[in-house]
Amino acid sequence: MWRSDPKNVGVLTEREFDLLVDGRTVPGVVWAEEQVEPGQPMVLLGHGGTTHKKAEYLVQVAMLLARRGVLAMAIDGPGHGERAGVHDPSDLGAFERAWNDGGGTDAVIADWRAALDFVSTELETGRTGWWGLSMGTMMGLPVVANDDRISVALLGLMGSWGPNGDRLMAEAPNVDCPVRFLMQWDDEVVPRDRCLELFSTIGSKRKTLHANPGLHAAVPAFEIRDSTDYLAAALKRRKD
Amino acid sequence: MWRSDPKNVGVLTEREFDLLVDGRTVPGVVWAEEQVEPGQPMVLLGHGGTTHKKAEYLVQVAMLLARRGVLAMAIDGPGHGERAGVHDPSDLGAFERAWNDGGGTDAVIADWRAALDFVSTELETGRTGWWGLSMGTMMGLPVVANDDRISVALLGLMGSWGPNGDRLMAEAPNVDCPVRFLMQWDDEVVPRDRCLELFSTIGSKRKTLHANPGLHAAVPAFEIRDSTDYLAAALKRRKD
Repeated sequence: MWRSDPKNVGVLTEREFDLLVDGRTVPGVVWAEEQVEPGQPMVLLGHGGTTHKKAEYLVQVAMLLARRGVLAMAIDGPGHGERAGVHDPSDLGAFERAWNDGGGTDAVIADWRAALDFVSTELETGRTGWWGLSMGTMMGLPVVANDDRISVALLGLMGSWGPNGDRLMAEAPNVDCPVRFLMQWDDEVVPRDRCLELFSTIGSKRKTLHANPGLHAAVPAFEIRDSTDYLAAALKRRKD
Repeated sequence: MWRSDPKNVGVLTEREFDLLVDGRTVPGVVWAEEQVEPGQPMVLLGHGGTTHKKAEYLVQVAMLLARRGVLAMAIDGPGHGERAGVHDPSDLGAFERAWNDGGGTDAVIADWRAALDFVSTELETGRTGWWGLSMGTMMGLPVVANDDRISVALLGLMGSWGPNGDRLMAEAPNVDCPVRFLMQWDDEVVPRDRCLELFSTIGSKRKTLHANPGLHAAVPAFEIRDSTDYLAAALKRRKD
């Protein structure tokens, strides 16, 4: 259900909502330019570990998409944001507990499916894409693999690694939409070989790896900017 | 020396030249829109093995660059084009003999240096970039590493492999300009790990790997198109 009327925040219109999914309360937000028209494409934004649905960089991505006429939607992942919260980036144990207490990968898939059901019905959105790095790919890759409505994805900073590494490898061959996959060549969190292995396993015929030097969180600004151009162009292209 | 007056070929103006470099005759060509103005940027195009300076795909790259106001220059590599010629793509032995008979990597560096000296003086060109895949990187990486005039490079489809693989690995740390490096994930000619190793060794702070599925020669059209946008934008950016 919408939490309140749409409100203007800066140059965006923000619509907050809460859903009850298998007993879990899942809070979310949709960003758009003021006018929303039927058929507008939408990108689902998966936040990174220890952040939340309104992390500053997600708002920036939403801004870049809005300028191209694309809506953006985000929800809090298990144990993040309004759903309790993991706040210590150095504690992988706490992260794993939060992920599993929130229901793990199957719950994540169900949460995003419910959110897309709700928003796509309410706002009559058109084609749908995914944007998510790190935990945004831990969530996003299984979601994309299991929801045919998603027709293009920006993934990365993740590999055959972490709380659901085996699950990611099992789901990757089922991803068949175009994918751009970002990785950081000197990633100190997810080992290089694990990232390459996950990219290699993605089933899509059209997939491109973009690798840049630097640590996990040092994705170059131009890659973020270009990623929104990539998604917007793909979502506006005529279907074959 | 220019071989003749500039001539119109399709929508491009073509200027052919021949240089004598350490006893070798090196033929080359410059493509431009009709008007050439002082300070125009230029990209050096390194052709692939068994092809030559006027290979169809190089002409296409020259076209894309010309539309952005960027000149393109190509010469025949050792044993290629008007310099005898390697015509059997399956015979790596013949390729290695041609490469070495043409003087090897040091001669390649000298040939391109002489060509850039000549054209940059004659046409008063501005900033310079490199575009070359496969043999175009066997030539280009040492050229870029040894010629400070080159300020951005598109490389790829090559690794710590082939006739000058050790030399490429030795020169790579000396490359310090921005680089985009293309590779094909299923390359049947240059092994994947060798490509990753060479990318990893390039010294540039700004370098980006783009990997796509497919065999050696199956670089997606969008990567070719985007590569010319990348070079043109970098060459027109204000220097710091």
